[in-house]
Amino acid sequence: MKAFEIRDQFGIESLALVERAVPKPGPKQALVKMRAVSLNYRDLMVVKGLYPNLRLPLVPLSDGVGDVVEVGEGASRFKPGHRVAGIFFQKWLTGTLNKNNARSALGGDVGGVLSEYVLFDEEGLVPVPEHLTDDEAATLPCAAVTAWNALVCAGQVRPGDSILVQGTGGVSIFALQFGKLLGASVIVTSSSDEKLERAQRLGAGGLINYKKIPEWDAKVVELTAGVGVDHVVEVGGAGTLDKSMRCARIGGHISLIGILAGASGQTLIPLALVKSLRLQGIYVGSREMFEAMNRAISLHQLRPVVNRVFPFAEVREALRYMESGAHFGKIAVRL
Amino acid sequence: MKAFEIRDQFGIESLALVERAVPKPGPKQALVKMRAVSLNYRDLMVVKGLYPNLRLPLVPLSDGVGDVVEVGEGASRFKPGHRVAGIFFQKWLTGTLNKNNARSALGGDVGGVLSEYVLFDEEGLVPVPEHLTDDEAATLPCAAVTAWNALVCAGQVRPGDSILVQGTGGVSIFALQFGKLLGASVIVTSSSDEKLERAQRLGAGGLINYKKIPEWDAKVVELTAGVGVDHVVEVGGAGTLDKSMRCARIGGHISLIGILAGASGQTLIPLALVKSLRLQGIYVGSREMFEAMNRAISLHQLRPVVNRVFPFAEVREALRYMESGAHFGKIAVRL
Amino acid sequence: MKAFEIRDQFGIESLALVERAVPKPGPKQALVKMRAVSLNYRDLMVVKGLYPNLRLPLVPLSDGVGDVVEVGEGASRFKPGHRVAGIFFQKWLTGTLNKNNARSALGGDVGGVLSEYVLFDEEGLVPVPEHLTDDEAATLPCAAVTAWNALVCAGQVRPGDSILVQGTGGVSIFALQFGKLLGASVIVTSSSDEKLERAQRLGAGGLINYKKIPEWDAKVVELTAGVGVDHVVEVGGAGTLDKSMRCARIGGHISLIGILAGASGQTLIPLALVKSLRLQGIYVGSREMFEAMNRAISLHQLRPVVNRVFPFAEVREALRYMESGAHFGKIAVRL
Amino acid sequence: MKAFEIRDQFGIESLALVERAVPKPGPKQALVKMRAVSLNYRDLMVVKGLYPNLRLPLVPLSDGVGDVVEVGEGASRFKPGHRVAGIFFQKWLTGTLNKNNARSALGGDVGGVLSEYVLFDEEGLVPVPEHLTDDEAATLPCAAVTAWNALVCAGQVRPGDSILVQGTGGVSIFALQFGKLLGASVIVTSSSDEKLERAQRLGAGGLINYKKIPEWDAKVVELTAGVGVDHVVEVGGAGTLDKSMRCARIGGHISLIGILAGASGQTLIPLALVKSLRLQGIYVGSREMFEAMNRAISLHQLRPVVNRVFPFAEVREALRYMESGAHFGKIAVRL
Repeated sequence: MKAFEIRDQFGIESLALVERAVPKPGPKQALVKMRAVSLNYRDLMVVKGLYPNLRLPLVPLSDGVGDVVEVGEGASRFKPGHRVAGIFFQKWLTGTLNKNNARSALGGDVGGVLSEYVLFDEEGLVPVPEHLTDDEAATLPCAAVTAWNALVCAGQVRPGDSILVQGTGGVSIFALQFGKLLGASVIVTSSSDEKLERAQRLGAGGLINYKKIPEWDAKVVELTAGVGVDHVVEVGGAGTLDKSMRCARIGGHISLIGILAGASGQTLIPLALVKSLRLQGIYVGSREMFEAMNRAISLHQLRPVVNRVFPFAEVREALRYMESGAHFGKIAVRL
Repeated sequence: MKAFEIRDQFGIESLALVERAVPKPGPKQALVKMRAVSLNYRDLMVVKGLYPNLRLPLVPLSDGVGDVVEVGEGASRFKPGHRVAGIFFQKWLTGTLNKNNARSALGGDVGGVLSEYVLFDEEGLVPVPEHLTDDEAATLPCAAVTAWNALVCAGQVRPGDSILVQGTGGVSIFALQFGKLLGASVIVTSSSDEKLERAQRLGAGGLINYKKIPEWDAKVVELTAGVGVDHVVEVGGAGTLDKSMRCARIGGHISLIGILAGASGQTLIPLALVKSLRLQGIYVGSREMFEAMNRAISLHQLRPVVNRVFPFAEVREALRYMESGAHFGKIAVRL
Repeated sequence: MKAFEIRDQFGIESLALVERAVPKPGPKQALVKMRAVSLNYRDLMVVKGLYPNLRLPLVPLSDGVGDVVEVGEGASRFKPGHRVAGIFFQKWLTGTLNKNNARSALGGDVGGVLSEYVLFDEEGLVPVPEHLTDDEAATLPCAAVTAWNALVCAGQVRPGDSILVQGTGGVSIFALQFGKLLGASVIVTSSSDEKLERAQRLGAGGLINYKKIPEWDAKVVELTAGVGVDHVVEVGGAGTLDKSMRCARIGGHISLIGILAGASGQTLIPLALVKSLRLQGIYVGSREMFEAMNRAISLHQLRPVVNRVFPFAEVREALRYMESGAHFGKIAVRL
Repeated sequence: MKAFEIRDQFGIESLALVERAVPKPGPKQALVKMRAVSLNYRDLMVVKGLYPNLRLPLVPLSDGVGDVVEVGEGASRFKPGHRVAGIFFQKWLTGTLNKNNARSALGGDVGGVLSEYVLFDEEGLVPVPEHLTDDEAATLPCAAVTAWNALVCAGQVRPGDSILVQGTGGVSIFALQFGKLLGASVIVTSSSDEKLERAQRLGAGGLINYKKIPEWDAKVVELTAGVGVDHVVEVGGAGTLDKSMRCARIGGHISLIGILAGASGQTLIPLALVKSLRLQGIYVGSREMFEAMNRAISLHQLRPVVNRVFPFAEVREALRYMESGAHFGKIAVRL
């Protein structure tokens, strides 16, 4: 079988296509023939060596969908033919993230899914909604579960609440879609009017071009009748957190997702304190969250936004496309 | 009646003793003859002009206890003779802090309690536990309610949990005492072995002299068997938040209380994200929290730690004593 | 002004149209000229004397909408011309129901709204969504807030959850509408296929005619793939609670609303225990819940279902119509 | 090895001592040599055939402690020599009880621990606090975890809260001990003044002999200053639930534990509704709860109350002693 590997050095160019033997499932394991995978910003950081604690060689990527082709002794959750996705943290099944289940992220702590066949413990797999194409289903494990955890689990968004979503990347577009499911109003920021228009078609009720309105935090406050937003999905770059805190309402909730978001320590604490803000680090989510999300996706026949699909051989182009920031929603790679 | 006022300029020296007419209670109001007041670090900032949005002249101080001496028409909650304390946010009775109830802090948004008589809306008062001396009861409204909100309401500490308390100021010592009530183990940091010994006598199970052990975060991790603490009561100065985040467990909870705590924006977001931390700004608490706390204080006959009591005329000395950082627990001023 | 009063004896026939002086607002009060009122099953019980602790004479009815026409000294929340509704518990503003705020229900503990003019403390009023007709706005205070509390506050329904709604009365139809806002799937029971069709048009995904399918609990389990529903809005009559518990999933949530629902004590405890069920008594809700609900109703331009409107003089006919059980949604009375 | 089995018929007398081969651990399993077991009321019901869905033959009993003597391939959680207890639901590790993990109760759905050796999946075991004797450690899995779940997890008891504990059986005495850890005040009922005295020595603050005071609900209200208790641990017999609901405060919480507690359907719903009560079925708890409880037990060096210890051969006498109701706390059986 073929797989892409980060071998002895990092960088998109160094990503190597290698030939490996197809593994055999051990007890309670399942072998999955991948159909499609999808990219997250984290994968780009992993490939470029900007992610901590990586051991090479490593097959990157956490997100993908495929068919169970063989199961090991004692396996009972799946049968050959089932279409499944691996969960981001292979050991985080339910409850909270902790020391025991944290070190099990696909394409980081353990090998990833950029491979024709991948071996999983059967507990580390979930069925995917039937109405989704392979490309769509491949986008769920990291970005979608992150947005679900942020808004549904940690955020407990209620109908009528307001949500601020920054930009139009994978997590942000899922946050927009889930925000609508939750009955909330969603404000989206972007540097592109064209992307804002697409966000509007997905249901965004407030649109801010932050290139044209650098003081977008003031605009958010204005759009919320002077109160501020209830929830911020903070995925932004340097300096966004300060503004996010300024445009959150008193008692508001900020999901910390974007690893690049910068903040000045001088303003963070006083603002958090005086406004009684809650800042919650969101690191994807559990299998139970994934399953609950799938139930909602199925009920509402919700479709992830796949911006572009690359063939397996062009995964490097796909990564460079992500690097360019030109995408809206998710980037998939078909095997 | 006599009162201290910040008149036309800030600074401890400029605090002026003035003579004012005793006010008359309007409908549903109560006039309180103060018995004792207590200091918080916030009061020092207010007097020195380091607090935002102050309008002069202003009677400072939020915390105090006294006797109802007269009530206005329609008042029904209290009668003359009742010993009461004003709540920090005069309009935050229950539920969450919001735009409507936030701008009502004693000794800041509205006039404070450093006065022989103070007029309150009756809804802005609570009875204080009977077993407390006046000096002790005077310490409750800001520091004690803050610690209660952080650990009991926002933190939901459970028996067996671990708590890190920074230093031995007013909030920290209440957090130590409430942490013990909650069945938690409490680690205290201080620059003084003598203060650590006193903390130990109050029940602290872990003691760290951060002067001797500058890498106190590593020590906290060691004391918690490599897991990290469940809760941090972050009241520290510059640079403490980074260390607090490092010694919190995955999924841990950090109460942001100390307005001076600094953090570098570079590390905050990645740490919060990867460790799924929750950072919760704590701005005192509601009347309902105050009442629940008083019930617990009464049941356990808990006694606030009053470090030193100054006479009314020496309030400036009391403020300078607080400024020196020599105190352990609370500083009271008796009228 | 005219008002209907329960005078010295109970019963729909005894409801008396009386002439009263228009009251004057005292400090922080507002006088409201009623435009429309609506009926709840509780009102029928009050009029018939089946409700505990009533003192006569009593103006019945809790729900209505009108215009502020005059405000008392110090009133600041409303001005003449504002369209408002009274909150069910006049003293339950936020937080939880307790001994202090419970005894303040309109048309029960205190006088109700079946009167041309009604005097309120200004804290006991909320603005109503602008897009609603008077008849629609009049339906909110009891039935809508009850459904909101049950599903949004106590139930914390999430997208993809399943809800069972019994019948098609006022609370049930609001529960159906809010359930859809929350992204849930909703199963409705009724004895009438025609009513089930109307429920379907409002978004019900499961329809059960309990006359035709007496074992409707088994049908609910079937419709939820053998798992059982996540939430039951229990408003039923004798014997429904047993069935509700049988068709709830393990760990499910049952909102106890219908005061007539019967249960056999023999089965209740073992079922609740073995299935880890949560049964939550729901007694309308707070002003804060009402306001949050109004925000959601406005955002989604949701319209309450008003089944029939009676003129003021025919309020007795309206009560008899409710008694007949022929209605679908709410019954309004226009002044 | 020796074991007791319910063979072809129920009843204490029919419990048969049998000889079985010592089983061999399969992959990720551990073989445990039992040191002590303890009885729950449920075990009595199982032995007498009063429990649903039992398949014979069955080794009864859920609670016990022993030493790991051998582990299977791939096992990593324990080594020979570790002292461990089995968790009640062998598959409920964390999160909530659900369809997948519910059918795995020791001594009911699957074979129990009344045997010299017992085979467990390693995930179904937890280490026990070191300071406990074997008899004490054997009491934890069912009764202690039930009380912990009721008060700490579902109940979220806070310092100063009041708790009503019915009787002095296993769950009740753990509830008393945990209630004290939580900083609550605890009221205990019993038919025996001698047992009440022992409860008082364990920290009970309110004592009611329900033989002498049949209207014990009114007494509870009196002891809570007319407000009612915050939490009821409902383990009672016929008719207790009605009284429990009457003496709970508005918005109070009732843990439904005692499978025998009876209630009249006529009063339950109206009371639950008008008082906004929450009734929560408690069916033991997860492994995560067990571990958190053990941490608290270790920190506080809390000791379970073992009323009497029987030798293995006299397990029938132990069951009859439980049946007599003479015990205070737990009954252990030593192997």
